[in-house]
Amino acid sequence: MTDDVLLAQTLRGGHVESCHYGAIAVVDAAGGLVFTAGDVSTPIFPRSTAKSLQALPLLADGAADHFDLPDAALVLACASHQGEPQHIATALDMLARTGLDQNALECGTHWPLDSAATRALAATGEEACALHNCCSGKHAGFICLACASNMPAEGYTNPQHPVMRRIAHTLASVMDTPHTDANRGVDGCAIPTWAVPLTALALGFARFATGLHLTPDDAAAAKRLRTAISANPFMIAGTDQFDTLVMQELAPRVLTKMGAEGVMTVALPEQGLGIAIKCRDGGIRGAEAAAAAMIKRFGKIESPILEHFLARKLTNWNGQTVGEIRTAPSLLPRN
Amino acid sequence: MTDDVLLAQTLRGGHVESCHYGAIAVVDAAGGLVFTAGDVSTPIFPRSTAKSLQALPLLADGAADHFDLPDAALVLACASHQGEPQHIATALDMLARTGLDQNALECGTHWPLDSAATRALAATGEEACALHNCCSGKHAGFICLACASNMPAEGYTNPQHPVMRRIAHTLASVMDTPHTDANRGVDGCAIPTWAVPLTALALGFARFATGLHLTPDDAAAAKRLRTAISANPFMIAGTDQFDTLVMQELAPRVLTKMGAEGVMTVALPEQGLGIAIKCRDGGIRGAEAAAAAMIKRFGKIESPILEHFLARKLTNWNGQTVGEIRTAPSLLPRN
Repeated sequence: MTDDVLLAQTLRGGHVESCHYGAIAVVDAAGGLVFTAGDVSTPIFPRSTAKSLQALPLLADGAADHFDLPDAALVLACASHQGEPQHIATALDMLARTGLDQNALECGTHWPLDSAATRALAATGEEACALHNCCSGKHAGFICLACASNMPAEGYTNPQHPVMRRIAHTLASVMDTPHTDANRGVDGCAIPTWAVPLTALALGFARFATGLHLTPDDAAAAKRLRTAISANPFMIAGTDQFDTLVMQELAPRVLTKMGAEGVMTVALPEQGLGIAIKCRDGGIRGAEAAAAAMIKRFGKIESPILEHFLARKLTNWNGQTVGEIRTAPSLLPRN
Repeated sequence: MTDDVLLAQTLRGGHVESCHYGAIAVVDAAGGLVFTAGDVSTPIFPRSTAKSLQALPLLADGAADHFDLPDAALVLACASHQGEPQHIATALDMLARTGLDQNALECGTHWPLDSAATRALAATGEEACALHNCCSGKHAGFICLACASNMPAEGYTNPQHPVMRRIAHTLASVMDTPHTDANRGVDGCAIPTWAVPLTALALGFARFATGLHLTPDDAAAAKRLRTAISANPFMIAGTDQFDTLVMQELAPRVLTKMGAEGVMTVALPEQGLGIAIKCRDGGIRGAEAAAAAMIKRFGKIESPILEHFLARKLTNWNGQTVGEIRTAPSLLPRN
C-alpha cells in the first residue's frame, strides 16, 4: 500500500494527530481514467457502496412496479440506514407488499445505528429486530425481487440463490469485472460481496450516473433510482450522515454512497463521471474528506456542505472546538 | 509517515480489506531503546493512555488516603470506562467523599460507551450525565486532589489551575519531556493533553512498571496503582474491552491502557519495559493487534487472550465468521 496517497489528517492543538491514506479513481462511462491517486488496481470490497447497483434488477425486472413500490422504498433498497422510524416503517411496508414480514429477513439483527433511535426503542421496552439492521431495505428489495419472479424468498442471501446470481450478473456487467467464487467474500449482512479494482467500482458509478453502456432496462432503472434518491436523501442514510447531508444540498447533481471499511462512491451525472475512494485503513472520515474534494474538483461545485467536510471541526463533550479533520491539500482543485 | 510499518490487516474472504500502519517504541526505565518500528520521534498525543501517570499525584500527594479511596476508585481514576453501573457508582462515591456530586465534573456528558448500559439507562427514562462520561473517574480523582489540598475544585480542567499544573509537572518529569503551551492540545474531556514522542510515552510506562527513576512518592504510587489495577481490571474499561480482557488474564505481569486515536501503552514490570504504540490512522483495532504481538514478544508470554487479539475473528450479524484482524507477522516473536 506504499503507493497510496494522503487523503486527510486530523489535527489537535495545531498538531497532526492521525493520518488517513488511500486511493481514488475518477472514471468516465467508457472506462477512461480521468484521475487516479494511490493503488487503484488491487481489488477492494465495495461493501454498501454497491447497493444502488444491486438495486438495478429490482426495477429492471419489474418487481418494483409489480409491488407498486413508492420512491422512498426504492431509496431504502439502496440505503445504509440509521434505523430511524421512517426507515423501519418503509422496510416493513416493502415486506408487507409481498405478504411477508421481518421474519423473512436474513440480514441479522443489530440495534439502530442512530443512537437516539436506539435509546427511543429501548425506552419503549422493545428489542431490536432485523428491520433495524442498516441493510434491511436492501434485503426487503431482494425479497420483492424473489417474490415478483415467483422464486422462493428463503435462502436469498446464498450465493447460489437465483436472486444473488441475478445480482452478481448485474454487478459483473455494470463494472465489466468478473464476480466469481475467486473474488467473493461475505458482507456484514450475510450476502456476498466481491472484491473489484477501484477503477471498476468507479466505472459502475459513471454508468449509474449516465446510463451509458448499460442495457436499456438498467439505464432506465438507474435514471429512476437517481431521481428517487435525489428526492429522498434522508432515506439512504439518516440524521447527520454524509450521504444525506451532501445530497440534501447537492442532488441530483451529486449522488454519493458510503460503504463499510472506508469506501465511498460518487456519481456526477452532469460530468458523466463516477468516483470511487478507498481509505485504506477503513476509516470512513478519511473517505468523506476526500470525497468532498473530488466533488468540488471534478463536479466543479462550490457549496457550504463541501467546505464543512473539507475542514470538519472536532469538538469535545463540552462543545469546545479541539481540532479538525482536514482534507489533504493535494486533492483540492487546482486554481 | 512513510517511515511507519504495517501493524495489522483485516481480511475478508481471504482477501486483504483494510490495513493499519503505525509506530512502536519499547523502552527501559533508563530510556534505552529496546525496539522501535516506524516513526517514533514525531510527537503524538497520548490521550487516555496517560491516565495512570496523571493519577500519580492523587496518591503521591496524600489525597487518596485523605479520602480513604478504595482500590476500585484508584483504578477508576485511571480508567476509560464504559459507563456500566459499577463505574457510575464508584465515580459518584469518589465525589461524595469530597462533599460534591456530578455537578462538579467538567468533562461533559455522553451516553455510556457500552451499548447495553445505554439501553438500560434509556429504559429507565433517565438521561445521561457527566458520570457516564468515560473519563468521569479521572475527573473525580482530580477533584479529590483539589479538595484534599484545599484548592477550589472549580476550573480544575484549566491548564493554569494548580491541579493541572501539578499533573503537567508529573507528566513532564516521568516522561523526561517538556509539557508546555507549545505542545498542548485539548482532550475530549476538556483537560490538556500534550504531544510527546512515542519513545517518551514508552519511557513513562517503563518507569510506571518499575518505579525506577521516579521520586520515592511517585514510585510508591505507581506500585499501589499497579496492584489496584491488577485486582480490578473491570474498572479500567469494562465489558469486552481489550484492557479488561488482557489484564483479567495477564495482570500483574502485564498492564495495558488504550487511548483515543489508536494509542496503546503496555507496562511489563518483570522485564522492566514500557511499550507505546500509535496506529497512525487512529484505529484502535490496529493498536490492539500490535500490542498483543509486543506482549507476546517482549513479555515472553503465551496466552489465549493474546492469540485472540493476534487473529481476531470478524463475524457478521448472523454470527458467521467473515474474516479476521490479523497482526502483521513481522511484529511476532522470532523463533
